[in-house]
Amino acid sequence: MKTGFFNVLDVQTFIEKLRGFASMPVQGIALEEADGRVLAQDVLSGEDLPLAHRACMDGYAVRAADLFGASEGNPAYLEHIGVVDIERPADFVVEAGQCATIVTGGILPEGADAVIMVEHTQDMGAGTVEMRKSLAPHENVMLRGEDAAAGAVALTAGTVLRPQEIGLLAALGIQSVSVHRRPRVGIFSTGDEVIPVSETPRVGQVRDVNSYALTALVQRAGGVATCYGIVPDVQSALEKMLAKAVAENDVVLLSGGSSVGTRDLTMAALDSLDGATVINHGVAISPGKPLILASAKKAQGQCAVWGLPGQVTSAQVVMFVLGMPFLRWLSGEREPFDQRGWPSRRAVLVRNVASRQGREDYVRVRLQNAESGETEAVPVTGKSGLLRTMLLAQGVVRIPAASEGLDGGATVDVLLFGGSC
Amino acid sequence: MKTGFFNVLDVQTFIEKLRGFASMPVQGIALEEADGRVLAQDVLSGEDLPLAHRACMDGYAVRAADLFGASEGNPAYLEHIGVVDIERPADFVVEAGQCATIVTGGILPEGADAVIMVEHTQDMGAGTVEMRKSLAPHENVMLRGEDAAAGAVALTAGTVLRPQEIGLLAALGIQSVSVHRRPRVGIFSTGDEVIPVSETPRVGQVRDVNSYALTALVQRAGGVATCYGIVPDVQSALEKMLAKAVAENDVVLLSGGSSVGTRDLTMAALDSLDGATVINHGVAISPGKPLILASAKKAQGQCAVWGLPGQVTSAQVVMFVLGMPFLRWLSGEREPFDQRGWPSRRAVLVRNVASRQGREDYVRVRLQNAESGETEAVPVTGKSGLLRTMLLAQGVVRIPAASEGLDGGATVDVLLFGGSC
Repeated sequence: MKTGFFNVLDVQTFIEKLRGFASMPVQGIALEEADGRVLAQDVLSGEDLPLAHRACMDGYAVRAADLFGASEGNPAYLEHIGVVDIERPADFVVEAGQCATIVTGGILPEGADAVIMVEHTQDMGAGTVEMRKSLAPHENVMLRGEDAAAGAVALTAGTVLRPQEIGLLAALGIQSVSVHRRPRVGIFSTGDEVIPVSETPRVGQVRDVNSYALTALVQRAGGVATCYGIVPDVQSALEKMLAKAVAENDVVLLSGGSSVGTRDLTMAALDSLDGATVINHGVAISPGKPLILASAKKAQGQCAVWGLPGQVTSAQVVMFVLGMPFLRWLSGEREPFDQRGWPSRRAVLVRNVASRQGREDYVRVRLQNAESGETEAVPVTGKSGLLRTMLLAQGVVRIPAASEGLDGGATVDVLLFGGSC
Repeated sequence: MKTGFFNVLDVQTFIEKLRGFASMPVQGIALEEADGRVLAQDVLSGEDLPLAHRACMDGYAVRAADLFGASEGNPAYLEHIGVVDIERPADFVVEAGQCATIVTGGILPEGADAVIMVEHTQDMGAGTVEMRKSLAPHENVMLRGEDAAAGAVALTAGTVLRPQEIGLLAALGIQSVSVHRRPRVGIFSTGDEVIPVSETPRVGQVRDVNSYALTALVQRAGGVATCYGIVPDVQSALEKMLAKAVAENDVVLLSGGSSVGTRDLTMAALDSLDGATVINHGVAISPGKPLILASAKKAQGQCAVWGLPGQVTSAQVVMFVLGMPFLRWLSGEREPFDQRGWPSRRAVLVRNVASRQGREDYVRVRLQNAESGETEAVPVTGKSGLLRTMLLAQGVVRIPAASEGLDGGATVDVLLFGGSC
């Protein structure tokens, strides 16, 4: 039996190969569409934000020096000279010994350099306000340009836009941004035993799980998925489909061929694909060892072809650990492979987990809240190919290649699959 | 000055009020659209999955009893009687002393009860295979119905569908599911000083940050956002917009009025809204104390009206801590308010953070990797209203209401804002 595992890379080397693929071309998009995208260029601010010193509390605009030493027991008394309109700068100046009512967001009147919160004051009537606290200059004031300065870089290329970055861009009046295009991902399944989800299997047939599960994983990683259906175990059909999918996408995910025969066919089809180079025939990872990566040259750029493991659960774990970070890499993220930046949860492993040295293991675990208040990570038992091993799990625990396993009671970081968006 | 804070709820009581809102009605959707949605009904399996005992390794189908005591030093020898086709059940029976080649996914032939991995065998030629390992019955075999049994519940109502659940449904041939409808969320900004993002502010004006930032937050929580623009500080205009937004949505997020005057107008408009009940006038949370919640009766169901704090950063934190979980609650999730289930990262707080007893504080922090390998949480300094306090932060640390603060060196769970999807 030919196993085809003649070029198995360790995980770090495989990731270095992935980093060899260039990020997607730049496109301009409307701010409304930009959440989750990665800036391809620095964004400069065209103006100061705030445009002027602004109050960040409701209270009184004052000169901090007037409140020097003021306290509950030793209040200061200031003359109330007016109310700052939220919409426009005051037409008066706050002189020594004076104060003016101001609300959050109001422009600090000339002369004033701080805002005292209304809670620390008492309106005594007859134009006098009691001040029961001392202040530092600029206290409770957002300074002109403190969020962004005219002409300066407000956000750098490589920033992943979140709601707060979207908010900053809106505040600066920036209605479109340059981001990396989403990677287009073609998905197809191989194997004579695989049938469409709409059909009823005979014994020996299985429905095409991967077209659905991989599409969801690709979308979660910000890719645009296209499903090409199922290809039978015939080399010419596989070659034809591969050529079409490579031409139309930035990444091709090919999966479902669980048998050695299908793997050999996949290899042969990749070898015969014009301008394609097979990078590896396996990765020292479990599950996921049979993972194949190839690079196919295109008229413009290149396409990464992934031959995913045949087992659907292995394919899902490989996508989580390597495939989704790769799509985020293509989308312009700088450190998507650094697991320290992934959503995770610290937990106590409830029992020993053995691992073979020389390969990186990802153990599926479910989380439970212990009575102690700690989170416990319970390894999911059962044959790794069962779908329910993925259903029961909230995430995976990594066992490094150099390790022979983890001891029960060890504290581990559970990399979370994530629930709803 | 009227502050309007006459009914301030603690966070737990506020969450109980939120739980009083019913989840969204049920709708059927295609499996392709179902990722991230919440099942509204149990899903029954119409068939066994797998349909028959299947190999989960490449190797030989055997009778485990034949390999009893077999090892490297004491191998067993079996007669090779055939090859199992991946597509159809074998037409032969594996008798005592016999074996048959099988690939991952192949149906176990009659007579066989286990699969030995090819790595533990040697083809001796002349129809004899050497077996170098003993096996337990069912080893490397997925049993009929082990993933799902015909007639049994495969997934329960309330399950958040992830790629792996989508995969199971595909495997069962289920092409549409009943889920809770996404909540429709109407967003509008109030305040005479707020101008559209497309306009250039005079000193004293600010662009409408919230329509953009809140839309992104709503979409991340699975809601469908509609922006209604900006309403001036005129009660009749506010009432009209509120009535329209309530009629067309399940939730209304009203924000931007940073001044006490705008708050008073909001309260008055809510009081005058037909069938509306104001639930509270504040929450003991920082930032976010001015949060107002009202319930408005509709022809069908009710609408939750949120009067968000005027400060855009406060509004964002409140949305993260309470608003987004509320949308997930409406979408059918069971425990969206339980922060133990949120993506988080354990970190060491680098310095003391003070907090006022009696309110729950959420401190913005940025994360950094310390040389020790630990993650450090660095509180973000600066006036809380500055947008950059949110830009610099990767998440928040909760300080319970009963606490007076956290000590530097304490281990904390940082609730992560999340980067790309």
